[in-house]
Amino acid sequence: MNKIAGVFDSGVGGLTVVRTLLEHNIFDKIIYFGDTARVPYGNKDKNTIIRYSLEAVEFFENFDIDIIIVACNTVSVFALKQMQKSSKVPVIGVVEAGVDMASKKVISKTSKILTIGTKGTIQSKIYDTKLKLLGFTNTISIATPLFVPIVEQELENTPILQETMNYYFNGLENIEYVILGCTHFPIISKQIATYFDSATTIQSGEAIVETLKKKFKYKKAKNLSKIEFYASDAPAQLKIRAKSWLLEKYF
Amino acid sequence: MNKIAGVFDSGVGGLTVVRTLLEHNIFDKIIYFGDTARVPYGNKDKNTIIRYSLEAVEFFENFDIDIIIVACNTVSVFALKQMQKSSKVPVIGVVEAGVDMASKKVISKTSKILTIGTKGTIQSKIYDTKLKLLGFTNTISIATPLFVPIVEQELENTPILQETMNYYFNGLENIEYVILGCTHFPIISKQIATYFDSATTIQSGEAIVETLKKKFKYKKAKNLSKIEFYASDAPAQLKIRAKSWLLEKYF
Repeated sequence: MNKIAGVFDSGVGGLTVVRTLLEHNIFDKIIYFGDTARVPYGNKDKNTIIRYSLEAVEFFENFDIDIIIVACNTVSVFALKQMQKSSKVPVIGVVEAGVDMASKKVISKTSKILTIGTKGTIQSKIYDTKLKLLGFTNTISIATPLFVPIVEQELENTPILQETMNYYFNGLENIEYVILGCTHFPIISKQIATYFDSATTIQSGEAIVETLKKKFKYKKAKNLSKIEFYASDAPAQLKIRAKSWLLEKYF
Repeated sequence: MNKIAGVFDSGVGGLTVVRTLLEHNIFDKIIYFGDTARVPYGNKDKNTIIRYSLEAVEFFENFDIDIIIVACNTVSVFALKQMQKSSKVPVIGVVEAGVDMASKKVISKTSKILTIGTKGTIQSKIYDTKLKLLGFTNTISIATPLFVPIVEQELENTPILQETMNYYFNGLENIEYVILGCTHFPIISKQIATYFDSATTIQSGEAIVETLKKKFKYKKAKNLSKIEFYASDAPAQLKIRAKSWLLEKYF
Protein backbone atom coordinates (compact mmCIF):
# COMPACT_ATOMS: atom_id res chain seq x y z
CA MET A 1 0.00 0.00 0.00
CA ASN A 2 1.30 3.42 -0.90
CA LYS A 3 2.44 5.56 2.00
CA ILE A 4 1.84 9.28 1.72
CA ALA A 5 3.13 12.02 4.05
CA GLY A 6 1.99 15.59 4.45
CA VAL A 7 4.93 17.79 5.41
CA PHE A 8 4.09 21.20 6.85
CA ASP A 9 6.33 24.18 7.41
CA SER A 10 5.76 27.92 7.63
CA GLY A 11 8.07 28.37 4.65
CA VAL A 12 11.01 26.68 2.99
CA GLY A 13 12.99 25.38 6.02
CA GLY A 14 11.05 22.13 6.10
CA LEU A 15 12.62 21.21 2.78
CA THR A 16 15.69 20.01 4.70
CA VAL A 17 13.42 17.46 6.40
CA VAL A 18 12.01 16.48 3.00
CA ARG A 19 15.53 16.02 1.71
CA THR A 20 16.28 13.44 4.42
CA LEU A 21 12.90 11.75 3.88
CA LEU A 22 13.75 11.44 0.18
CA GLU A 23 17.21 10.09 0.91
CA HIS A 24 15.64 7.34 3.02
CA ASN A 25 12.81 6.83 0.52
CA ILE A 26 10.26 6.10 3.23
CA PHE A 27 7.21 7.48 1.46
CA ASP A 28 5.82 6.80 -1.97
CA LYS A 29 4.62 10.35 -2.05
CA ILE A 30 5.23 13.55 -0.10
CA ILE A 31 2.83 16.48 -0.13
CA TYR A 32 4.76 19.57 1.00
CA PHE A 33 2.83 22.59 2.17
CA GLY A 34 4.72 25.81 2.94
CA ASP A 35 2.67 28.70 4.28
CA THR A 36 4.84 31.15 2.38
CA ALA A 37 2.16 33.85 2.39
CA ARG A 38 2.46 34.15 6.15
CA VAL A 39 6.06 33.14 6.87
CA PRO A 40 7.75 33.70 9.32
CA TYR A 41 5.68 32.33 12.20
CA GLY A 42 8.40 33.07 14.79
CA ASN A 43 7.28 36.62 15.57
CA LYS A 44 3.55 35.91 15.59
CA ASP A 45 1.17 35.45 18.52
CA LYS A 46 0.72 31.91 19.81
CA ASN A 47 -2.98 31.93 18.95
CA THR A 48 -2.21 33.05 15.41
CA ILE A 49 0.29 30.20 15.00
CA ILE A 50 -2.29 27.70 16.26
CA ARG A 51 -4.93 29.06 13.88
CA TYR A 52 -2.60 28.83 10.88
CA SER A 53 -1.46 25.33 11.86
CA LEU A 54 -5.04 24.07 12.11
CA GLU A 55 -5.63 25.46 8.62
CA ALA A 56 -2.73 23.29 7.49
CA VAL A 57 -4.45 20.24 8.98
CA GLU A 58 -7.56 21.17 6.97
CA PHE A 59 -5.42 21.61 3.85
CA PHE A 60 -4.04 18.09 4.16
CA GLU A 61 -7.59 16.67 4.40
CA ASN A 62 -7.72 17.21 0.64
CA PHE A 63 -5.18 14.40 0.27
CA ASP A 64 -5.21 10.77 1.27
CA ILE A 65 -2.24 11.07 3.61
CA ASP A 66 -1.12 8.64 6.32
CA ILE A 67 0.72 11.07 8.58
CA ILE A 68 1.41 14.76 9.02
CA ILE A 69 5.02 15.75 9.68
CA VAL A 70 5.50 19.17 11.24
CA ALA A 71 8.85 20.25 9.83
CA CYS A 72 8.88 23.53 11.74
CA ASN A 73 10.08 24.05 15.29
CA THR A 74 7.83 27.03 16.00
CA VAL A 75 4.71 25.05 15.06
CA SER A 76 5.97 22.01 16.98
CA VAL A 77 6.44 24.18 20.08
CA PHE A 78 3.17 26.07 19.99
CA ALA A 79 0.60 24.09 18.01
CA LEU A 80 1.46 20.39 17.86
CA LYS A 81 -1.07 19.27 20.47
CA GLN A 82 -3.87 21.22 18.85
CA MET A 83 -2.98 19.75 15.46
CA GLN A 84 -2.97 16.24 16.93
CA LYS A 85 -6.42 16.79 18.43
CA SER A 86 -7.89 18.08 15.19
CA SER A 87 -6.24 15.62 12.76
CA LYS A 88 -7.58 12.20 11.80
CA VAL A 89 -4.07 10.93 11.02
CA PRO A 90 -1.04 10.98 13.36
CA VAL A 91 0.87 14.25 13.61
CA ILE A 92 4.56 14.20 14.57
CA GLY A 93 6.86 17.16 15.14
CA VAL A 94 10.55 17.91 14.95
CA VAL A 95 10.93 18.83 18.63
CA GLU A 96 9.82 15.48 20.05
CA ALA A 97 11.70 13.63 17.32
CA GLY A 98 14.85 15.67 17.99
CA VAL A 99 14.73 15.03 21.74
CA ASP A 100 14.12 11.30 21.14
CA MET A 101 17.11 11.15 18.86
CA ALA A 102 19.30 13.08 21.30
CA SER A 103 18.36 10.67 24.08
CA LYS A 104 19.66 7.80 21.95
CA LYS A 105 22.65 9.49 20.36
CA VAL A 106 24.16 11.35 23.32
CA ILE A 107 26.62 9.07 25.11
CA SER A 108 26.53 10.39 28.68
CA LYS A 109 23.93 12.17 30.80
CA THR A 110 26.62 14.76 31.54
CA SER A 111 27.62 15.35 27.92
CA LYS A 112 27.46 19.03 27.01
CA ILE A 113 24.49 19.63 24.70
CA LEU A 114 23.85 22.96 22.97
CA THR A 115 20.46 23.65 21.41
CA ILE A 116 20.18 26.48 18.88
CA GLY A 117 17.03 27.86 17.29
CA THR A 118 14.95 30.95 16.68
CA LYS A 119 13.98 33.23 19.57
CA GLY A 120 10.53 31.70 20.05
CA THR A 121 11.80 28.14 20.18
CA ILE A 122 14.63 28.95 22.61
CA GLN A 123 12.48 31.18 24.83
CA SER A 124 9.97 28.34 25.16
CA LYS A 125 12.79 26.27 26.75
CA ILE A 126 11.11 23.21 25.26
CA TYR A 127 14.32 21.36 24.37
CA ASP A 128 16.04 22.05 27.71
CA THR A 129 12.94 21.06 29.67
CA LYS A 130 12.49 17.79 27.80
CA LEU A 131 16.20 16.94 27.96
CA LYS A 132 16.31 17.58 31.71
CA LEU A 133 13.28 15.33 32.21
CA LEU A 134 15.33 12.60 30.51
CA GLY A 135 18.19 13.15 32.95
CA PHE A 136 20.59 15.24 30.86
CA THR A 137 22.24 17.70 33.22
CA ASN A 138 24.58 19.71 31.03
CA THR A 139 22.35 21.53 28.56
CA ILE A 140 22.47 25.06 27.24
CA SER A 141 20.40 26.79 24.59
CA ILE A 142 20.83 30.02 22.67
CA ALA A 143 18.83 31.83 20.03
CA THR A 144 20.68 32.24 16.73
CA PRO A 145 18.01 33.90 14.58
CA LEU A 146 20.36 35.47 12.03
CA PHE A 147 21.27 32.00 10.75
CA VAL A 148 17.82 31.88 9.11
CA PRO A 149 18.27 34.79 6.67
CA ILE A 150 21.92 33.81 6.16
CA VAL A 151 20.68 30.44 4.87
CA GLU A 152 17.71 31.88 2.97
CA GLN A 153 19.96 34.40 1.24
CA GLU A 154 22.57 31.74 0.49
CA LEU A 155 25.33 33.47 2.42
CA GLU A 156 26.49 30.27 4.15
CA ASN A 157 29.84 30.23 2.37
CA THR A 158 30.73 33.85 3.13
CA PRO A 159 32.74 35.24 6.08
CA ILE A 160 29.42 36.62 7.39
CA LEU A 161 28.51 33.17 8.71
CA GLN A 162 31.86 32.79 10.47
CA GLU A 163 31.49 36.23 12.08
CA THR A 164 27.93 35.42 13.13
CA MET A 165 29.04 32.13 14.70
CA ASN A 166 31.82 34.00 16.51
CA TYR A 167 29.21 36.39 17.87
CA TYR A 168 26.60 33.85 18.96
CA PHE A 169 28.97 31.14 20.16
CA ASN A 170 31.43 33.43 21.96
CA GLY A 171 32.44 31.86 25.27
CA LEU A 172 30.94 28.42 24.58
CA GLU A 173 33.42 25.63 25.16
CA ASN A 174 33.56 21.84 25.04
CA ILE A 175 30.25 21.51 23.23
CA GLU A 176 29.85 17.82 22.30
CA TYR A 177 26.39 17.84 20.70
CA VAL A 178 24.47 20.55 18.90
CA ILE A 179 20.72 20.13 18.44
CA LEU A 180 19.72 22.07 15.35
CA GLY A 181 16.38 23.38 16.59
CA CYS A 182 15.44 25.06 13.34
CA THR A 183 14.96 23.31 10.02
CA HIS A 184 17.05 25.92 8.21
CA PHE A 185 20.17 24.95 10.10
CA PRO A 186 21.05 21.61 8.45
CA ILE A 187 22.25 23.74 5.50
CA ILE A 188 25.05 25.02 7.77
CA SER A 189 25.52 21.88 9.88
CA LYS A 190 29.07 21.31 8.65
CA GLN A 191 30.14 24.84 9.52
CA ILE A 192 28.57 24.54 12.99
CA ALA A 193 30.15 21.13 13.64
CA THR A 194 33.53 22.46 12.53
CA TYR A 195 33.21 25.51 14.75
CA PHE A 196 32.87 23.23 17.78
CA ASP A 197 35.74 20.89 16.79
CA SER A 198 33.58 18.24 15.17
CA ALA A 199 30.69 18.27 17.60
CA THR A 200 27.89 15.90 16.64
CA THR A 201 24.84 17.65 15.20
CA ILE A 202 21.32 16.36 15.73
CA GLN A 203 19.13 17.24 12.79
CA SER A 204 15.36 17.29 12.43
CA GLY A 205 15.25 15.26 9.22
CA GLU A 206 17.22 12.34 10.62
CA ALA A 207 15.25 12.53 13.85
CA ILE A 208 11.94 12.34 11.98
CA VAL A 209 13.15 9.34 9.96
CA GLU A 210 14.17 7.63 13.22
CA THR A 211 10.73 8.29 14.74
CA LEU A 212 8.97 6.97 11.63
CA LYS A 213 11.04 3.78 11.66
CA LYS A 214 10.99 3.08 15.40
CA LYS A 215 7.61 4.34 16.58
CA PHE A 216 5.57 3.90 13.41
CA LYS A 217 7.42 0.91 11.90
CA TYR A 218 7.82 2.55 8.52
CA LYS A 219 10.02 0.70 6.02
CA LYS A 220 11.54 1.73 2.73
CA ALA A 221 8.95 2.44 0.04
CA LYS A 222 8.91 0.28 -3.10
CA ASN A 223 9.01 3.20 -5.50
CA LEU A 224 11.16 6.32 -5.58
CA SER A 225 9.28 9.00 -3.66
CA LYS A 226 7.27 11.50 -5.63
CA ILE A 227 6.83 14.97 -4.29
CA GLU A 228 4.21 17.67 -4.77
CA PHE A 229 4.70 21.26 -3.62
CA TYR A 230 2.01 23.60 -2.39
CA ALA A 231 2.58 27.14 -1.15
CA SER A 232 0.13 29.76 0.04
CA ASP A 233 2.03 32.39 -1.96
CA ALA A 234 4.72 32.51 -4.65
CA PRO A 235 4.92 28.73 -5.29
CA ALA A 236 7.50 29.31 -8.00
CA GLN A 237 9.98 30.61 -5.42
CA LEU A 238 9.42 27.53 -3.26
CA LYS A 239 10.21 25.29 -6.21
CA ILE A 240 13.39 27.18 -7.02
CA ARG A 241 14.53 26.72 -3.42
CA ALA A 242 13.51 23.06 -3.53
CA LYS A 243 15.59 22.51 -6.65
CA SER A 244 18.60 24.07 -4.97
CA TRP A 245 18.23 22.05 -1.75
CA LEU A 246 16.83 18.73 -2.97
CA LEU A 247 17.99 16.24 -5.51
CA GLU A 248 17.11 16.99 -9.09
CA LYS A 249 15.89 13.45 -9.70
CA TYR A 250 12.72 14.08 -7.72
CA PHE A 251 11.51 16.71 -10.19
CA MET B 1 -7.07 72.62 11.61
CA ASN B 2 -5.51 69.41 12.86
CA LYS B 3 -3.42 67.52 10.36
CA ILE B 4 -3.48 63.75 10.58
CA ALA B 5 -1.29 61.27 8.67
CA GLY B 6 -1.74 57.57 8.11
CA VAL B 7 1.65 55.87 7.88
CA PHE B 8 1.69 52.39 6.35
CA ASP B 9 4.43 49.80 6.40
CA SER B 10 4.51 46.02 6.13
CA GLY B 11 6.12 45.88 9.58
CA VAL B 12 8.32 47.99 11.81
CA GLY B 13 10.71 49.61 9.30
CA GLY B 14 8.36 52.53 8.71
CA LEU B 15 8.97 53.64 12.28
CA THR B 16 12.17 55.33 11.06
CA VAL B 17 9.99 57.51 8.83
CA VAL B 18 7.70 58.21 11.79
CA ARG B 19 10.74 59.22 13.84
CA THR B 20 11.66 61.90 11.32
CA LEU B 21 8.04 63.06 11.04
CA LEU B 22 7.95 63.44 14.83
CA GLU B 23 11.25 65.32 14.88
CA HIS B 24 9.79 67.81 12.40
CA ASN B 25 6.42 67.86 14.17
CA ILE B 26 4.49 68.21 10.95
CA PHE B 27 1.35 66.37 12.01
CA ASP B 28 -0.88 66.79 15.02
CA LYS B 29 -1.50 63.08 14.90
CA ILE B 30 0.02 60.04 13.23
CA ILE B 31 -1.84 56.76 12.78
CA TYR B 32 0.74 54.02 12.19
CA PHE B 33 -0.37 50.74 10.67
CA GLY B 34 2.12 47.87 10.42
CA ASP B 35 0.90 44.72 8.70
CA THR B 36 2.93 42.60 11.11
CA ALA B 37 0.78 39.52 10.54
CA ARG B 38 1.95 39.34 6.94
CA VAL B 39 5.42 40.90 7.02
CA PRO B 40 7.68 40.64 5.04
CA TYR B 41 6.13 41.71 1.74
CA GLY B 42 9.45 41.44 -0.13
CA ASN B 43 9.10 37.78 -1.08
CA LYS B 44 5.41 37.91 -1.98
CA ASP B 45 3.73 38.03 -5.36
CA LYS B 46 3.05 41.48 -6.80
CA ASN B 47 -0.70 40.88 -6.80
CA THR B 48 -0.61 39.84 -3.14
CA ILE B 49 1.27 43.04 -2.25
CA ILE B 50 -1.31 45.12 -4.12
CA ARG B 51 -4.18 43.35 -2.35
CA TYR B 52 -2.66 43.88 1.09
CA SER B 53 -1.87 47.52 0.31
CA LEU B 54 -5.45 48.22 -0.78
CA GLU B 55 -6.61 46.71 2.51
CA ALA B 56 -4.41 49.29 4.24
CA VAL B 57 -6.19 52.06 2.32
CA GLU B 58 -9.48 50.63 3.61
CA PHE B 59 -8.08 50.47 7.13
CA PHE B 60 -7.22 54.17 7.06
CA GLU B 61 -10.79 55.02 5.99
CA ASN B 62 -11.69 54.42 9.64
CA PHE B 63 -9.77 57.59 10.51
CA ASP B 64 -10.13 61.18 9.43
CA ILE B 65 -6.69 61.38 7.85
CA ASP B 66 -5.37 63.99 5.42
CA ILE B 67 -2.71 61.90 3.68
CA ILE B 68 -1.37 58.36 3.49
CA ILE B 69 2.39 57.97 3.69
CA VAL B 70 3.73 54.67 2.37
CA ALA B 71 6.80 54.09 4.52
CA CYS B 72 7.78 50.88 2.75
CA ASN B 73 9.81 50.63 -0.43
CA THR B 74 8.26 47.34 -1.57
CA VAL B 75 4.75 48.80 -1.41
CA SER B 76 5.93 52.02 -3.07
CA VAL B 77 7.42 50.01 -5.92
CA PHE B 78 4.55 47.61 -6.53
CA ALA B 79 1.32 49.15 -5.24
CA LEU B 80 1.56 52.94 -4.98
CA LYS B 81 -0.45 53.70 -8.13
CA GLN B 82 -3.22 51.31 -7.14
CA MET B 83 -3.37 52.87 -3.67
CA GLN B 84 -3.56 56.35 -5.17
CA LYS B 85 -6.43 55.28 -7.42
CA SER B 86 -8.40 53.76 -4.56
CA SER B 87 -7.75 56.40 -1.87
CA LYS B 88 -9.78 59.57 -1.31
CA VAL B 89 -6.78 61.35 0.21
CA PRO B 90 -3.33 61.79 -1.36
CA VAL B 91 -0.92 58.85 -1.11
CA ILE B 92 2.83 59.48 -1.19
CA GLY B 93 5.61 56.92 -1.15
CA VAL B 94 9.24 56.74 -0.12
CA VAL B 95 10.58 55.96 -3.61
CA GLU B 96 9.33 59.12 -5.31
CA ALA B 97 10.23 61.19 -2.26
CA GLY B 98 13.72 59.70 -2.17
CA VAL B 99 14.34 60.35 -5.85
CA ASP B 100 13.05 63.92 -5.49
CA MET B 101 15.39 64.50 -2.60
CA ALA B 102 18.34 62.97 -4.44
CA SER B 103 17.69 65.25 -7.40
CA LYS B 104 18.02 68.26 -5.09
CA LYS B 105 20.81 67.02 -2.84
CA VAL B 106 23.19 65.47 -5.36
CA ILE B 107 25.61 68.12 -6.59
CA SER B 108 26.53 66.88 -10.05
CA LYS B 109 24.79 64.75 -12.66
CA THR B 110 27.94 62.63 -12.73
CA SER B 111 28.18 62.12 -8.95
CA LYS B 112 28.39 58.46 -8.04
CA ILE B 113 25.10 57.36 -6.44
CA LEU B 114 24.62 53.96 -4.84
CA THR B 115 21.11 52.72 -4.07
CA ILE B 116 20.71 49.85 -1.61
CA GLY B 117 17.53 47.97 -0.74
CA THR B 118 15.87 44.58 -0.55
CA LYS B 119 15.93 42.23 -3.53
CA GLY B 120 12.49 43.21 -4.80
CA THR B 121 13.20 46.93 -4.73
CA ILE B 122 16.58 46.60 -6.42
CA GLN B 123 15.38 44.10 -9.03
CA SER B 124 12.59 46.51 -9.97
CA LYS B 125 15.34 49.02 -10.95
CA ILE B 126 12.92 51.77 -9.94
CA TYR B 127 15.53 54.08 -8.39
CA ASP B 128 18.04 53.71 -11.23
CA THR B 129 15.34 54.24 -13.84
CA LYS B 130 13.99 57.38 -12.21
CA LEU B 131 17.46 58.78 -11.54
CA LYS B 132 18.50 58.21 -15.15
CA LEU B 133 15.37 60.00 -16.38
CA LEU B 134 16.53 62.99 -14.33
CA GLY B 135 19.91 62.93 -16.04
CA PHE B 136 22.07 61.21 -13.43
CA THR B 137 24.59 59.08 -15.30
CA ASN B 138 26.65 57.40 -12.59
CA THR B 139 24.22 55.23 -10.66
CA ILE B 140 24.58 51.75 -9.28
CA SER B 141 22.27 49.67 -7.11
CA ILE B 142 22.74 46.52 -5.08
CA ALA B 143 20.50 44.37 -2.92
CA THR B 144 21.60 44.20 0.71
CA PRO B 145 18.79 42.12 2.23
CA LEU B 146 20.71 40.88 5.28
CA PHE B 147 20.76 44.43 6.66
CA VAL B 148 17.05 44.00 7.49
CA PRO B 149 17.37 41.15 10.03
CA ILE B 150 20.62 42.67 11.33
CA VAL B 151 18.62 45.79 12.24
CA GLU B 152 15.56 43.87 13.47
CA GLN B 153 17.72 41.70 15.70
CA GLU B 154 19.64 44.73 16.96
CA LEU B 155 23.02 43.48 15.73
CA GLU B 156 24.02 46.84 14.24
CA ASN B 157 26.84 47.35 16.75
CA THR B 158 28.42 43.92 16.26
CA PRO B 159 31.23 42.90 13.89
CA ILE B 160 28.55 41.07 11.89
CA LEU B 161 27.45 44.36 10.33
CA GLN B 162 31.01 45.28 9.36
CA GLU B 163 31.55 41.85 7.79
CA THR B 164 28.23 42.12 5.94
CA MET B 165 29.14 45.57 4.59
CA ASN B 166 32.52 44.17 3.49
CA TYR B 167 30.68 41.45 1.63
CA TYR B 168 28.02 43.56 -0.08
CA PHE B 169 30.17 46.62 -0.78
CA ASN B 170 33.29 44.77 -1.91
CA GLY B 171 34.77 46.55 -4.94
CA LEU B 172 32.63 49.69 -4.69
CA GLU B 173 34.73 52.85 -4.73
CA ASN B 174 34.25 56.60 -4.65
CA ILE B 175 30.60 56.40 -3.66
CA GLU B 176 29.43 59.96 -2.93
CA TYR B 177 25.74 59.36 -2.17
CA VAL B 178 23.91 56.36 -0.78
CA ILE B 179 20.14 56.19 -1.19
CA LEU B 180 18.78 54.06 1.64
CA GLY B 181 16.06 52.28 -0.32
CA CYS B 182 14.68 50.41 2.70
CA THR B 183 13.19 52.02 5.78
CA HIS B 184 15.19 49.75 8.09
CA PHE B 185 18.46 51.21 6.90
CA PRO B 186 18.44 54.62 8.66
CA ILE B 187 19.24 52.67 11.84
CA ILE B 188 22.65 51.86 10.29
CA SER B 189 23.08 55.07 8.27
CA LYS B 190 26.15 56.16 10.27
CA GLN B 191 27.91 52.86 9.73
CA ILE B 192 27.13 52.96 6.00
CA ALA B 193 28.27 56.58 5.65
CA THR B 194 31.49 55.77 7.53
CA TYR B 195 32.15 52.74 5.33
CA PHE B 196 32.15 55.01 2.28
CA ASP B 197 34.33 57.74 3.84
CA SER B 198 31.47 60.00 4.87
CA ALA B 199 29.25 59.57 1.86
CA THR B 200 25.97 61.46 2.10
CA THR B 201 23.00 59.22 2.85
CA ILE B 202 19.52 59.95 1.51
CA GLN B 203 16.90 58.70 3.90
CA SER B 204 13.20 58.06 3.41
CA GLY B 205 12.05 60.03 6.47
CA GLU B 206 13.82 63.23 5.47
CA ALA B 207 12.67 62.76 1.90
CA ILE B 208 9.04 62.42 2.96
CA VAL B 209 9.28 65.56 5.14
CA GLU B 210 10.73 67.44 2.17
CA THR B 211 7.89 66.28 -0.10
CA LEU B 212 5.29 67.27 2.50
CA LYS B 213 6.78 70.73 2.86
CA LYS B 214 7.49 71.47 -0.80
CA LYS B 215 4.69 69.73 -2.68
CA PHE B 216 1.94 69.80 -0.07
CA LYS B 217 2.90 73.03 1.74
CA TYR B 218 2.79 71.43 5.16
CA LYS B 219 4.06 73.56 8.04
CA LYS B 220 4.91 72.75 11.62
CA ALA B 221 1.91 71.61 13.68
CA LYS B 222 0.82 73.70 16.66
CA ASN B 223 0.82 70.79 19.09
CA LEU B 224 3.35 68.06 19.74
CA SER B 225 2.39 65.11 17.49
CA LYS B 226 0.40 62.31 19.04
CA ILE B 227 0.81 58.82 17.70
CA GLU B 228 -1.39 55.74 17.63
CA PHE B 229 -0.09 52.28 16.71
CA TYR B 230 -2.05 49.56 14.95
CA ALA B 231 -0.67 46.17 13.95
CA SER B 232 -2.35 43.22 12.27
CA ASP B 233 -0.58 40.87 14.72
CA ALA B 234 1.44 41.14 17.95
CA PRO B 235 0.91 44.90 18.53
CA ALA B 236 2.88 44.68 21.79
CA GLN B 237 6.05 43.83 19.84
CA LEU B 238 5.51 46.82 17.55
CA LYS B 239 5.25 49.12 20.58
CA ILE B 240 8.43 47.73 22.11
CA ARG B 241 10.26 48.41 18.86
CA ALA B 242 8.69 51.87 18.65
CA LYS B 243 9.89 52.71 22.15
CA SER B 244 13.41 51.67 21.24
CA TRP B 245 13.47 53.63 17.97
CA LEU B 246 11.35 56.67 18.74
CA LEU B 247 11.51 59.31 21.39
CA GLU B 248 9.98 58.36 24.72
CA LYS B 249 8.10 61.66 24.97
CA TYR B 250 5.60 60.60 22.34
CA PHE B 251 4.29 57.78 24.52
